[in-house]
Amino acid sequence: MNNKITKRDENFAKWYTDVVMAARLASYTSVKGCIAIEPNGYALWEKMQEILDKKFKELGHVNVQMPMLIPENLLKKEGELVEGFAPEVAWVTEGGANKLEERHCIRPTSETMFCDYYATHVKSYKDLPMLYNQWCNVLRWEHETRPFLRSREFLWQEGHTIHATKEEAERETQQMMDVYKWFHHEILAIPSITGRKTEKEKFAGAEYTLTNEALMYNGVSLQAGTSHYFGQKFSRAYNIKFQNKENKEEFVYQTSWGTATRMIGGLIMVHGDDKGLVLPPKIAPKQVVIIPIGKDNKVMEIALKIKKELNDNQIVTYLDNTEKSPGFKFAEAEVNGIPVRIEIGPRDLENGKITFTRRDTSEKEVIDLDSNILEYTKDLLDRIQKNLYEKAKERRDALTFEAKNLDEMKDILNTQPGFIHADWCGEEECEIKIKEIRGCKSRCITDDSFITGKCVCCGKDAKYHVIWGLQY
Amino acid sequence: MNNKITKRDENFAKWYTDVVMAARLASYTSVKGCIAIEPNGYALWEKMQEILDKKFKELGHVNVQMPMLIPENLLKKEGELVEGFAPEVAWVTEGGANKLEERHCIRPTSETMFCDYYATHVKSYKDLPMLYNQWCNVLRWEHETRPFLRSREFLWQEGHTIHATKEEAERETQQMMDVYKWFHHEILAIPSITGRKTEKEKFAGAEYTLTNEALMYNGVSLQAGTSHYFGQKFSRAYNIKFQNKENKEEFVYQTSWGTATRMIGGLIMVHGDDKGLVLPPKIAPKQVVIIPIGKDNKVMEIALKIKKELNDNQIVTYLDNTEKSPGFKFAEAEVNGIPVRIEIGPRDLENGKITFTRRDTSEKEVIDLDSNILEYTKDLLDRIQKNLYEKAKERRDALTFEAKNLDEMKDILNTQPGFIHADWCGEEECEIKIKEIRGCKSRCITDDSFITGKCVCCGKDAKYHVIWGLQY
Repeated sequence: MNNKITKRDENFAKWYTDVVMAARLASYTSVKGCIAIEPNGYALWEKMQEILDKKFKELGHVNVQMPMLIPENLLKKEGELVEGFAPEVAWVTEGGANKLEERHCIRPTSETMFCDYYATHVKSYKDLPMLYNQWCNVLRWEHETRPFLRSREFLWQEGHTIHATKEEAERETQQMMDVYKWFHHEILAIPSITGRKTEKEKFAGAEYTLTNEALMYNGVSLQAGTSHYFGQKFSRAYNIKFQNKENKEEFVYQTSWGTATRMIGGLIMVHGDDKGLVLPPKIAPKQVVIIPIGKDNKVMEIALKIKKELNDNQIVTYLDNTEKSPGFKFAEAEVNGIPVRIEIGPRDLENGKITFTRRDTSEKEVIDLDSNILEYTKDLLDRIQKNLYEKAKERRDALTFEAKNLDEMKDILNTQPGFIHADWCGEEECEIKIKEIRGCKSRCITDDSFITGKCVCCGKDAKYHVIWGLQY
Repeated sequence: MNNKITKRDENFAKWYTDVVMAARLASYTSVKGCIAIEPNGYALWEKMQEILDKKFKELGHVNVQMPMLIPENLLKKEGELVEGFAPEVAWVTEGGANKLEERHCIRPTSETMFCDYYATHVKSYKDLPMLYNQWCNVLRWEHETRPFLRSREFLWQEGHTIHATKEEAERETQQMMDVYKWFHHEILAIPSITGRKTEKEKFAGAEYTLTNEALMYNGVSLQAGTSHYFGQKFSRAYNIKFQNKENKEEFVYQTSWGTATRMIGGLIMVHGDDKGLVLPPKIAPKQVVIIPIGKDNKVMEIALKIKKELNDNQIVTYLDNTEKSPGFKFAEAEVNGIPVRIEIGPRDLENGKITFTRRDTSEKEVIDLDSNILEYTKDLLDRIQKNLYEKAKERRDALTFEAKNLDEMKDILNTQPGFIHADWCGEEECEIKIKEIRGCKSRCITDDSFITGKCVCCGKDAKYHVIWGLQY
């Protein structure tokens, strides 16, 4: 609350860090590249976990926990995986007082450990599918870090499933992508787009990767939830075989999918404003704050009554009954992004009124005390959720461009970045050349268009319609 | 289910491992000393987390997440802590492709990181208390490991709180010990005892440690929940100061408290039997299993109706509708410790009956189909919970002994170990001598007795009444 927040349009990067600190979502630590997730940030993560975990379980997944250390020989079994991750892992070389015979890395992701587990646990098609998920921490030795967006250690969930058939595994890959999409659109109010990663950008070791890409207020993309189809690549490398219905040995078909605390960064950068965090009601750990003005008994009585009624009806409401001034409390609720603020003061009460303030628009609505406050609040929360989604969608659409050639692409990226639609021949050479423009990368291949154009880079016939953009 | 379980009285250690494997709680991995927590084991942990987390939050605690890596210089700030833990930590010495300038250990516990956080976040008495908790993994380089009981990596919660006064911090230390005691007695049906650790056995760096000690079926103790009062020891080492009400700088008063996945081991060893796991209803992730006999439509109709009624009333019930034989399903429900099994078969139905089987006693109860099945099930679950507690208490009492001298102590420990009450002079020398008897350690100092006796070891006047025992 002492923290002054830089204006968003003045310096977006500074604004972001200011909001993270002012809303007490996270703070820096003495461990380079690692943050402390503070109570407000962790409460958001708990809410995300609660909603996703429920959905995963409804779809038949169960949670497990694999070791965080991976022996080097085990990591090395799948060539692409080790190539992709080896440069960014942390190695444990001493345990107790002794040098280890074999280095162990801290998991950057857990395909290795799940494969090792599945190889000894699956025997027959009757054991399949195995639909496992894990909530845990992972570590990647990043060099440039930013709270939530790119941190050496982060929290995430990683689903790892094995199946008896290709079709079933591919359905799972798509299903989990749809779950993430639902989560972004319905819960986080983030109109992410989905598609397939190019060969260059897919997960190391995957046959293909589906991705959810969200556009931040400043036009930079955030990859926020990916789902990988492995086919039999890992099962061959780790020897995960089963007896199929025809009594023949076969390698399993595999998927993995994950999303992380970086979504907290996404929430901030899609909805936040100059006053701080703005939370969609469906993900807000606290949805309503009641702020009593003065010490009038009647005020407190009404405040407690409303609090009880809302909480009894699954609207998470708290009463700020501290010694701070009302003005201070208003500002605190604002910086923390609480969707609805209710002020109850003696003067309003005399007129039989209370005041609601929406965090998303700052609009005040004065309501009769004897109206149906529960229904009014429910409706208001719905309106806020919808408005945040619509605003984010408008912004996304306004920052969605088309480019026919490299000059147009450069123009966009140098003026106001965003999602750039452009056809592509499919050659990595062109992808690399495009990356020279401010690090612009393919976000995803969309399959919703018939390709008639030419490659934005080389001008040859295009094979794919691709969305490009800068990325966190 | 293919696993044959060794008889408990024949070879307790082998029985324990057999139950862990047969009930699919955990399995060994390629990482030495680390287990994979499988779906049934993790579901138990989730249930434990849910219940404890709710209680912690009711008492005003909030969750956060600190980094898992600790730079060596930071760990070294508190002398006793580093002495206590340095021999058993794992060191990260390489990150990315480079050798690190400073080693980082993987947290064996997080006092260090919380102190580092608090030192920069607390300014005034108005910021206090800070009541933080963290659910996470920790790593200790143990040499002899056993699933859940002693594993290099384990999952736990660690509460870390700071306060403006000694009195408040000491109240917190006691309060959290009471929470663990409540959890053991009311939820896990484990009649643990509580007391204070001796100077030798207390947590490295604590002023004192309160402990919960549970007695396993074989008479060996399990430390299952400790609460430490640090006074100002850490706040002086890490410079955690605040402005008190008198506007003077003062060091904060601190506590920490934790409990871990080893409680799963405790549950197995207190309640399990020759058929496998036995779960108290209040901690069972699945409380009731319904097993239909045959494929009769009427059977399935009743099964679904009962399942719905129980689930609608917060009794977690599942229907085993797989292709396996009823006998196989019975055995599976038994090994997994499901408290109540309901069999519904066409013959019983003709007589308007269904059969309930209790896991704790194996008793069958045949019930009229038109009786109040919900109330009956609720009552049965209550009776099972109570019975398991009573049985465990009887066993604990039967294995609670008194010793006046070393010979008596040896006799007990060599015949049938248990909790041994014996007076003690307070000298570490005697504690060390007692440890020579099969590794017997002081479990806790009880304060419920007036000391009149002599030290069980040296025969001098006693200062403390202590409970001793072997330990996991």
